[in-house]
Amino acid sequence: MPTLLLSRKEVSALLNMGAVIRAVEQAFGDWAEGRGTMPPKSYLSLEKGDFRAMPAALPGAVAVKWVNVHPQNPSRGLATVMAVIIYSDPDTGYPLAVMDATEITAFRTGATAAIAAKYLARRDAHVLGIFGAGRQAYTQILAHAELFDLREVRVYDVRPEAVQRLIGLLPQFRLGACSPEETAASDIVCTVTPARAPFFKKAWLRPGTHINAIGADAEGKEELEPDVLKGSVVVVDDLRQASSGGEINVPIARGLYSPQEVYTSLGEIVAGQKPGRTDDRAITIFDSTGVAIEDVAISRLVYEQAKSGSYRTIDLVG
Amino acid sequence: MPTLLLSRKEVSALLNMGAVIRAVEQAFGDWAEGRGTMPPKSYLSLEKGDFRAMPAALPGAVAVKWVNVHPQNPSRGLATVMAVIIYSDPDTGYPLAVMDATEITAFRTGATAAIAAKYLARRDAHVLGIFGAGRQAYTQILAHAELFDLREVRVYDVRPEAVQRLIGLLPQFRLGACSPEETAASDIVCTVTPARAPFFKKAWLRPGTHINAIGADAEGKEELEPDVLKGSVVVVDDLRQASSGGEINVPIARGLYSPQEVYTSLGEIVAGQKPGRTDDRAITIFDSTGVAIEDVAISRLVYEQAKSGSYRTIDLVG
Repeated sequence: MPTLLLSRKEVSALLNMGAVIRAVEQAFGDWAEGRGTMPPKSYLSLEKGDFRAMPAALPGAVAVKWVNVHPQNPSRGLATVMAVIIYSDPDTGYPLAVMDATEITAFRTGATAAIAAKYLARRDAHVLGIFGAGRQAYTQILAHAELFDLREVRVYDVRPEAVQRLIGLLPQFRLGACSPEETAASDIVCTVTPARAPFFKKAWLRPGTHINAIGADAEGKEELEPDVLKGSVVVVDDLRQASSGGEINVPIARGLYSPQEVYTSLGEIVAGQKPGRTDDRAITIFDSTGVAIEDVAISRLVYEQAKSGSYRTIDLVG
Repeated sequence: MPTLLLSRKEVSALLNMGAVIRAVEQAFGDWAEGRGTMPPKSYLSLEKGDFRAMPAALPGAVAVKWVNVHPQNPSRGLATVMAVIIYSDPDTGYPLAVMDATEITAFRTGATAAIAAKYLARRDAHVLGIFGAGRQAYTQILAHAELFDLREVRVYDVRPEAVQRLIGLLPQFRLGACSPEETAASDIVCTVTPARAPFFKKAWLRPGTHINAIGADAEGKEELEPDVLKGSVVVVDDLRQASSGGEINVPIARGLYSPQEVYTSLGEIVAGQKPGRTDDRAITIFDSTGVAIEDVAISRLVYEQAKSGSYRTIDLVG
């Protein structure tokens, strides 16, 4: 029994955002109901970047993702983030596939935010606002378009050329370059920037907005003014991870916010253990840090499609 | 730049025990002197087996090993333990190679025990005793033969056929089937069994013996009577890991032994921060749990040899 090898191009061709969203939503429900296993990520910090080992299991699937963040890579013609998944048989440990997970990582982040918006945004949400026109913006828009009738996508970035590039990449949607205030005045706002200090102002907030706070994914990172959290309904993917490295980490470290103020986790809402949005005027915030069960769910989807196809294989451990 | 793919057969052909021992010894020294990074292993327990994600970095190298233990595998014609390493460029995060690590895991365990014996056994050690004639026994003998003039190897196993098979595999050494007492009366004793209760008796101990206690690598596992530890010089690979899952874990949990009684770590001895054996009559014990820096050191060795060869590659993340 050989191990399947799936390159980035091959994985990309197998990814369909609708199917990815369904798989990730199922994974959050399974996890909340005790059918998933996810030990904490292992972090490894080196001089020029860091690495994370992210293992997790879901029914019928187990995998580890090995992902790096090297901010100086673009100057060398390499992506900042690259990822590989080893996908194994939970019953024997056999490595069924080794696959690129760079695209999986981008898809799962978009998919998870859209799932959060499904439960937390207003039902009549039609305007999406994006802060940060980098790689993550693309999959955020694709994912929200699967679940919402997007009449308008407002985009702000400190680099106007990045906004124009994104507009060019997504001609099928009504994207427009907007001011920060205009972008913030959307029904659903996604913050996908590398900011280390808050840029999203409390003064911009309108009642009924849902915010997907994506950018803060490590200690010391923060996109929203801490006051934005106050009085908002905050939902996390994983409370421990969010408290140490998500949007709430800096406010908690400064004593401005407490983990007890978090409403619940996305998994509990998906599983029906807690309701999502109940008030049209509430501000809701999803603090996304990225959890390995998302990656396992998508790698299972990719493997199940690929296993009967004609891809390269290697007798890796045999 | 493609990613190199190295199968088990290809890795095996590149492994040379002498070079492996030198690489692992260097790694322990580097780690003790602060030139290595190793977060704790991530454990994932499932119904039929468990998985460990083991990331670590050494100068110029970073990798994660994904390894399983599935005790029922032999009945399905599969190995109990299989392992894969993703070996990356520390400066960019690029996955330079994906390689089998099943043989690497066996080699590094043997190499580390032999390095411990180099510093802890008597200089005139010539007789090696092996408890447990399974897979690990083979690499224990190969490794000790690199550093000692082995005039005799005594082997005991509850399964006499396993002893005969091992003898057949190593015709170049003077192996013999022995009683437990004869095996224990060796200069260097390696315990490489899956025992969950102590079988090695205090009464068998002779002054000046060095014991490599290998088998206990998870909570609840134990090979030596707790009294064997008392009055002995105990050295660990990693104190935290040994305390929670090594030979000393059960005695510690029962209040029969304390982590403060451990003399030092192998890295500190290799780095010259603490002396090894100083008394010909002392009993020395190396408690081996297996640390990821060993795997990283060997994967670097394998990669450096393979990178200029003609092996398969894949444009995995490109």
